[in-house]
Amino acid sequence: MGRTGMQSLEAQNPQFERDVRETFAQQTFMRMIGAKITGLSAGSVEISVPCSDNLLQHHGYLHGAVIAAIVDTACGCSAMTLMPPSSSVLTVEYKINFLAPAAGERIVARGRVLKAGRRLTVCSGEALALADGKEKPVAALVATMVRVTAA
Amino acid sequence: MGRTGMQSLEAQNPQFERDVRETFAQQTFMRMIGAKITGLSAGSVEISVPCSDNLLQHHGYLHGAVIAAIVDTACGCSAMTLMPPSSSVLTVEYKINFLAPAAGERIVARGRVLKAGRRLTVCSGEALALADGKEKPVAALVATMVRVTAA
Amino acid sequence: MGRTGMQSLEAQNPQFERDVRETFAQQTFMRMIGAKITGLSAGSVEISVPCSDNLLQHHGYLHGAVIAAIVDTACGCSAMTLMPPSSSVLTVEYKINFLAPAAGERIVARGRVLKAGRRLTVCSGEALALADGKEKPVAALVATMVRVTAA
Amino acid sequence: MGRTGMQSLEAQNPQFERDVRETFAQQTFMRMIGAKITGLSAGSVEISVPCSDNLLQHHGYLHGAVIAAIVDTACGCSAMTLMPPSSSVLTVEYKINFLAPAAGERIVARGRVLKAGRRLTVCSGEALALADGKEKPVAALVATMVRVTAA
Repeated sequence: MGRTGMQSLEAQNPQFERDVRETFAQQTFMRMIGAKITGLSAGSVEISVPCSDNLLQHHGYLHGAVIAAIVDTACGCSAMTLMPPSSSVLTVEYKINFLAPAAGERIVARGRVLKAGRRLTVCSGEALALADGKEKPVAALVATMVRVTAA
Repeated sequence: MGRTGMQSLEAQNPQFERDVRETFAQQTFMRMIGAKITGLSAGSVEISVPCSDNLLQHHGYLHGAVIAAIVDTACGCSAMTLMPPSSSVLTVEYKINFLAPAAGERIVARGRVLKAGRRLTVCSGEALALADGKEKPVAALVATMVRVTAA
Repeated sequence: MGRTGMQSLEAQNPQFERDVRETFAQQTFMRMIGAKITGLSAGSVEISVPCSDNLLQHHGYLHGAVIAAIVDTACGCSAMTLMPPSSSVLTVEYKINFLAPAAGERIVARGRVLKAGRRLTVCSGEALALADGKEKPVAALVATMVRVTAA
Repeated sequence: MGRTGMQSLEAQNPQFERDVRETFAQQTFMRMIGAKITGLSAGSVEISVPCSDNLLQHHGYLHGAVIAAIVDTACGCSAMTLMPPSSSVLTVEYKINFLAPAAGERIVARGRVLKAGRRLTVCSGEALALADGKEKPVAALVATMVRVTAA
């Protein structure tokens, strides 16, 4: 939400990358839809999903639920990159606007931290459809994440 | 959002039930997650999904994306029940709050129309987890839907 | 959002009414717009504002910001009714849908608790325009509140 | 919401600046709180408000409602800059996250168009608190605006 919204982002957990990938791997639903982490740094995470035939809505576009799923997860993972060790993350709430129908080879979701608090983290995300080498924005999301202690 | 928020709901399309079921059947993603329409009347639609092993998040609960998927779709279908014949519906945006972890035999999503306009319809939805014969609210959603002309 | 979303609501603070009214009285902005608490019980609060000439938007209707202000505040106060003594409340986020233009003698906002957690409380609110003895829903809001320790 | 979310922004109304300023001037509520347009170009608008004593919440910070008011209005005005002549704009819905307590000399709100459609426009906004020459982000907002024909 604007460049001024960025905090300086410093990881408190030296193994944040490993921990985020492990959390992601535990989500059977991400595997089911074919989603993969395609970018990961302190404060931002990218997740991609191929536009396969069983992920569609009634007009043949990618279902909004799949788009929301990967942007929300990218945001949750981005929040987790800045949390202390042994943290886990849950989505408190999010809001998504769909900007355009989503079709193409794949959808790329990018989540980043707008504001990291001790317990609550606010993230901003977007989804882009990749088709013929071009990116088209298809959704914008803002989410509130909460830190919980990992089991 | 409260009882006073209800409009008197009259269908303009005598075949709304058939049309909504047809639209739902076209969503390959709903089939993939095992979602079914379990209630349908003018202005409100219920969709249920079993809590299967490949729909989970990292703590073993049902993934929020699956919950959002069926509440959003229940809302979209509820909006469609009140639209004129040859209408189709798209989600402009929604906002979801997760109220509690979702586990049990299945999740039931209920969507209903708060306000039906000529083009825009505002819907309210909720998701409940069913376990051992009890219902527990797990999410609350508000969505804006737009009417488009069916292809 | 819907009747099943209601918790059984028990106050932990025997002086919640006094504390909520005190908090409300500290908000100079509520005074500026002429807002008053017109209903208060454990888990729900009503706030009303007269439609005065300096609260309007560009079509001569009540400004959406005023509506949002009183529904958000009604929600925050409703959250506070269920918190332990010495709690204060802040809005984490909210989402509002405007359902119809707001005009009439006054606007009534009702907020109620959907889910009270130890720190986070989710509330649902609505605004109604009162004109000629009739109520018309003009907005629906969902908010996340956080408990903080009162200074 | 990310740099890729920007459209190329071309005004269709050669007198958009005059029309937006006129619309803003009609909002008596903006005058009441002391808000002014402090920046205006095709696709983005800035509105500022001084932190005066009658705009406060219960901890003495600027009331969230005032922040929401100017970010929402900045977004609505930014949407209007890209609309055809004789258009007016209404807020369909917005969602705001409060990132930090707001205090200082004044609050600056910036709204910009994420996606301009024929009828619906999605905007992103932020609010910054200015204190001692420094800017601090205090809120992030996403809104859906609808074009209506000016009376």
